[in-house]
Amino acid sequence: MLNRIIICCLLISFKTLADDGSRLWLKYDLLKDAQQRDKYAALTKFIAANHNSPIVASAVSELQMGFQGLLGKKVSASASAGSRTGGVILQVNANAQNLLEDGFAINSQKGNIVISAKTPSGVLYGAFELLRNIQTGKSLSNLAIVSNPKVKIRMLNHWDNANGTVERGYAGSSMWKWTELPFRIDPRYIQYARANASIGINAASINNVNASSRFLTAEYLEKIKAVADVLRPYGIRVFISVNFRSPRTLGGLKTSDPLDPEVKQWWNDKTKEIHQYIPDFGGFLVKANSEGEPGPQDYGRTHADGANMLAEAMRPYGGIVIWRAFVYKADPNGDRFKEAYDQFKPLDGTFDPKVIVQVKNGPIDFMPREPFHPMFGAFPNTTLGMEFQITQEYLGQSTHLTYLAPMFKECLDSDTYAKGKGSTVAKVIDGSLESHQNSLMAGVANTGSDVNWTAHPFNQANWYAFGRLAWDYDLTSEHIASEWIAMTLAKSKAGQETIKRMMMQSLPIYISYTYPLGTAHMMGEGHHYGPEPWLEKSGRPDWTSIYYHRADSVGLGFDRTGKVSNALSLYSAEVQKQWGDPERCSLDYLLWFHHIPWTKKLSTGRTLWNELCFRYYDGVEQVRKLQTDWESLKPELDKETFENVKGRLRIQEKEALWWRDACVLYFITYTKMPIPAPLVPPTRSLNEVKKLVEIYHLR
Amino acid sequence: MLNRIIICCLLISFKTLADDGSRLWLKYDLLKDAQQRDKYAALTKFIAANHNSPIVASAVSELQMGFQGLLGKKVSASASAGSRTGGVILQVNANAQNLLEDGFAINSQKGNIVISAKTPSGVLYGAFELLRNIQTGKSLSNLAIVSNPKVKIRMLNHWDNANGTVERGYAGSSMWKWTELPFRIDPRYIQYARANASIGINAASINNVNASSRFLTAEYLEKIKAVADVLRPYGIRVFISVNFRSPRTLGGLKTSDPLDPEVKQWWNDKTKEIHQYIPDFGGFLVKANSEGEPGPQDYGRTHADGANMLAEAMRPYGGIVIWRAFVYKADPNGDRFKEAYDQFKPLDGTFDPKVIVQVKNGPIDFMPREPFHPMFGAFPNTTLGMEFQITQEYLGQSTHLTYLAPMFKECLDSDTYAKGKGSTVAKVIDGSLESHQNSLMAGVANTGSDVNWTAHPFNQANWYAFGRLAWDYDLTSEHIASEWIAMTLAKSKAGQETIKRMMMQSLPIYISYTYPLGTAHMMGEGHHYGPEPWLEKSGRPDWTSIYYHRADSVGLGFDRTGKVSNALSLYSAEVQKQWGDPERCSLDYLLWFHHIPWTKKLSTGRTLWNELCFRYYDGVEQVRKLQTDWESLKPELDKETFENVKGRLRIQEKEALWWRDACVLYFITYTKMPIPAPLVPPTRSLNEVKKLVEIYHLR
Repeated sequence: MLNRIIICCLLISFKTLADDGSRLWLKYDLLKDAQQRDKYAALTKFIAANHNSPIVASAVSELQMGFQGLLGKKVSASASAGSRTGGVILQVNANAQNLLEDGFAINSQKGNIVISAKTPSGVLYGAFELLRNIQTGKSLSNLAIVSNPKVKIRMLNHWDNANGTVERGYAGSSMWKWTELPFRIDPRYIQYARANASIGINAASINNVNASSRFLTAEYLEKIKAVADVLRPYGIRVFISVNFRSPRTLGGLKTSDPLDPEVKQWWNDKTKEIHQYIPDFGGFLVKANSEGEPGPQDYGRTHADGANMLAEAMRPYGGIVIWRAFVYKADPNGDRFKEAYDQFKPLDGTFDPKVIVQVKNGPIDFMPREPFHPMFGAFPNTTLGMEFQITQEYLGQSTHLTYLAPMFKECLDSDTYAKGKGSTVAKVIDGSLESHQNSLMAGVANTGSDVNWTAHPFNQANWYAFGRLAWDYDLTSEHIASEWIAMTLAKSKAGQETIKRMMMQSLPIYISYTYPLGTAHMMGEGHHYGPEPWLEKSGRPDWTSIYYHRADSVGLGFDRTGKVSNALSLYSAEVQKQWGDPERCSLDYLLWFHHIPWTKKLSTGRTLWNELCFRYYDGVEQVRKLQTDWESLKPELDKETFENVKGRLRIQEKEALWWRDACVLYFITYTKMPIPAPLVPPTRSLNEVKKLVEIYHLR
Repeated sequence: MLNRIIICCLLISFKTLADDGSRLWLKYDLLKDAQQRDKYAALTKFIAANHNSPIVASAVSELQMGFQGLLGKKVSASASAGSRTGGVILQVNANAQNLLEDGFAINSQKGNIVISAKTPSGVLYGAFELLRNIQTGKSLSNLAIVSNPKVKIRMLNHWDNANGTVERGYAGSSMWKWTELPFRIDPRYIQYARANASIGINAASINNVNASSRFLTAEYLEKIKAVADVLRPYGIRVFISVNFRSPRTLGGLKTSDPLDPEVKQWWNDKTKEIHQYIPDFGGFLVKANSEGEPGPQDYGRTHADGANMLAEAMRPYGGIVIWRAFVYKADPNGDRFKEAYDQFKPLDGTFDPKVIVQVKNGPIDFMPREPFHPMFGAFPNTTLGMEFQITQEYLGQSTHLTYLAPMFKECLDSDTYAKGKGSTVAKVIDGSLESHQNSLMAGVANTGSDVNWTAHPFNQANWYAFGRLAWDYDLTSEHIASEWIAMTLAKSKAGQETIKRMMMQSLPIYISYTYPLGTAHMMGEGHHYGPEPWLEKSGRPDWTSIYYHRADSVGLGFDRTGKVSNALSLYSAEVQKQWGDPERCSLDYLLWFHHIPWTKKLSTGRTLWNELCFRYYDGVEQVRKLQTDWESLKPELDKETFENVKGRLRIQEKEALWWRDACVLYFITYTKMPIPAPLVPPTRSLNEVKKLVEIYHLR
């Protein structure tokens, strides 16, 4: 018998030796330390849940799965603890103190661990918190945790197309298998729901904002209902991105004018129909009059007209309307920086309370570093939601290690000074600054059909970090990284520290070899892969590179002071002061706001040109250090994961060199100055580098 | 200790309980019957290999992996058996008797099992054959197997695009991760190589025939080299699909005229460059002057001019040029059936011996049932290769159970009568009929990034069947199905028989509810999903449906006798006799060749209209029987696989109904006759059904 068991062990472990990443941060591998297991086991002898909802059932089954995996024991569940001690009690209590909706408390109480919450979702989040404590090796004695989400709608936006592709997706095709639905439920939907619930995400818009009308047909509503039914027990509500022209496309109407009675009726009817499939439907997400999408302006109406019409259709229900502020017109003499602000400012105060205007973190488009969007703090009478991009469109896609928590935090922590010091973007977003009821933080998802969900193993951390920050933006990037690392990659303290250091350095490194000193938007046209700072012509002037960097023989950077675009004036006086003076402006933001002479000496003691070169070169060197760091971790890492990241770091090095050489060789055509010693000039020519990006323009 | 082992077992099996299909037919799960294991173990005590090549090393490691999994034991390998018995000996022997290149013999010899072959690849194929014998429960006593491949180049064509999408791919995105290459080697490449080698596939064209020039840049050759290096130890050679305009696109030349000296030189240089990366490069695959692709006709030259120019570039090397015959011009009064024949016929005998002209199995385009392509048997002086489609573009994509071996076989077994009775298509393809040196069978791959490679679990069987038939087209469809089932789904004899019956019925069922009686090409425009028999206008007349079915008030079908297109005349007299007389023509092919009155009584005793209705309805009923069959297997199947197929069968039923209703409601507008009793007319209207396919035309 023992023999057979050993054989069975050998064989099975033989198959599972490699970690394919499919389990994300919910690995639940047996804790190696038997003493530690025993300690936890003594506190998790049973599960008692006083509530009978599907969401609480998810919490119970997750705890059972977690205890089974981490502690190696089956734990039974019942409705009541009775007089037992040493167990985990789940309590839904509508009158729980100090808790908001979705919040939870975990307390050591009379020999048991009690997870209490006002709602089943709160209990579920508490269960995941308890598991995370075990996964990360924390003590379960004397627990007294209270945790409330800072933002109410914590949401993923999937830019997944009906045809199975994913716009700006770098991890395979769409995870939603529309042709299989509603009858085949891919088990990955459940994994996805669990992963989201574990970090507090409670909403998902399942299709691209460049939206196909087909998602509003009965055929597709049946499919979406099947998805909603899978996500509901994990507390996740489904949203649909809608095409504003749907009344014409699907309804056969002559117009989609939001003030037209038939159009209103069509949306009323459609919204009612949706609720027959999905009673707890989250709402609509709309990209309108943006990059060619239809919208109310096609009929001489405003964004508010469009959004409010949809809000009216949603009136009888709990859902909302999320209206994107990502709009800009193609004006070669304008400044895209100001477009959304200018278009929406007159509408402040005119949006229905059911409308949230979703604003990207920065005024351009998810650049690796942008100043916070000037709309934040300037729209007191509008509920503004945040749109971050988790998928790394401009941040290395699937091959660069770039941990995004510091980028999210940099924006959230920015002070708008709208109501004096401390009026951070985070406080705009959570509704506290201007006392809005709703609040929203959305992240454009990086999930795909790849086995490990996100292609680069480290990209999983960005999904994780987004969720954790949407729950609590006061968590530090380091803290979130530590959690994620302990649950995924390394068990040794030293290993965890090395990986955390790599992650914390990764964004500055990436920016250094791509967009140092506040440069932006110099990537390959269309696919946004690799550098193309020389791009002069495109479908629109504001899709070129030269529109943004404004390089000339004198210097570099987009003057957004009063002398030129005056975009700075959109910010409060304090912010203008902070960025308006090139002598005081942080180098991180310098060229966002100023056109600086190449020869100007910066606070580093180097001229702009020398500093630029230094940063590009240093970025490449830092990637090499990341490789050395990673190599040092080989003994303790899963082999497949180690090789996976190792290979990607080599690609990252190659591409960092590509960015460096492309940018310095291009800008040198303006500066006519040498690459400063001791830096060694690139061995290839500008023309050679230019050919590289052309390859990716070939069909 | 025992305790810990049991825990470990529990936990690991907990994780691996579900079969995600990623291991394809190479599961190597422990055989349940201990006695059987012991029997095999006694004959596999060691491995000895007299040859030191990477391919033989692959054979050794595969045997070790297989024995470890199937028999639960580690088996050591050495260079020589010495005086030992009870082991497996691998011998490369250039003078081996009765063996062709790649062939192998497996003999019980002096107490050992000896796998011998002329080449390392032959040994590898023999090793997989031995493992297959164990996987399928065959005896290893008194082995005397000789197996030679009938076709020399057994090839997958990947229609994978540079941007990661797959043309006509239904299993996620491309399995080739170009942005990660050359530095990250996805472990899936190795799984892919093993799977192919296990069924004798020895060639892979890695990119879409609608080819991007980027695959010929140094940047991409480095990436392709990395792939070739992974595939080489499994005996697989890499081919590249090339864009004929590359000398202009990449080389900056003014022309791509194949007779231009600079163009020739460009291809010579490029071919040389490729070989610096990939010394054993397989060759070029070319789609030219077809569906908008560039080609020699752009310069007034012939397909032979183009192909021979590339062959000349390939002269110093072992590789070849595969030139596709899939060409047709947009002529509303023509017959696409004849186009390739007509364009290529004058060129017979003018192609370089290094050129293989690759012909689709039928004259149109991978319809579920087509008469064999009239070029087969009519081009004695040209090496013709076969192009099958494994990916199910017209055969249910990812949601219909359709086992394709019978379709492949039907074509291969067709008699061209070119040199009298017995001149089968298979004998044209293997070169034996007209004594050609080269031979090729290509299959358009159905692989993708989905965890289980092919989306529908049963689609794996089509990949498997293609490889097995390319090796030996005399294998029966039943035999191949049995092998595959035993290695993948079911262990009980009864279960295996049920599944085999389902598979063997599946193609006739699919044809019944989509294209009965020899109809063709009535699918949704562009995406080819669902039915659209009413399609009257498209980018080209021969992309509509009415071009093919020719329905009118009198009857249905495309008259290809002398009265109209006379495509029949392209076949030999015997074939014309077989299909030319509507009274004698098999009902399977009837409407391919004849326009039959709706009221005409067929050999079944029913009129055409009634027979058509009967088949559409019967097809749906048969799908319901497949569901019942599948349900009966629940107790013995892996849960995840069971649910997966169950869900897809429900979708299949829904779509079978969609096809049935669409087609009978549409054709009834011509026949004006009722749906014959006892069949119950559809409850929905033609307009309602028409709206369904429109959904899939929405962006």
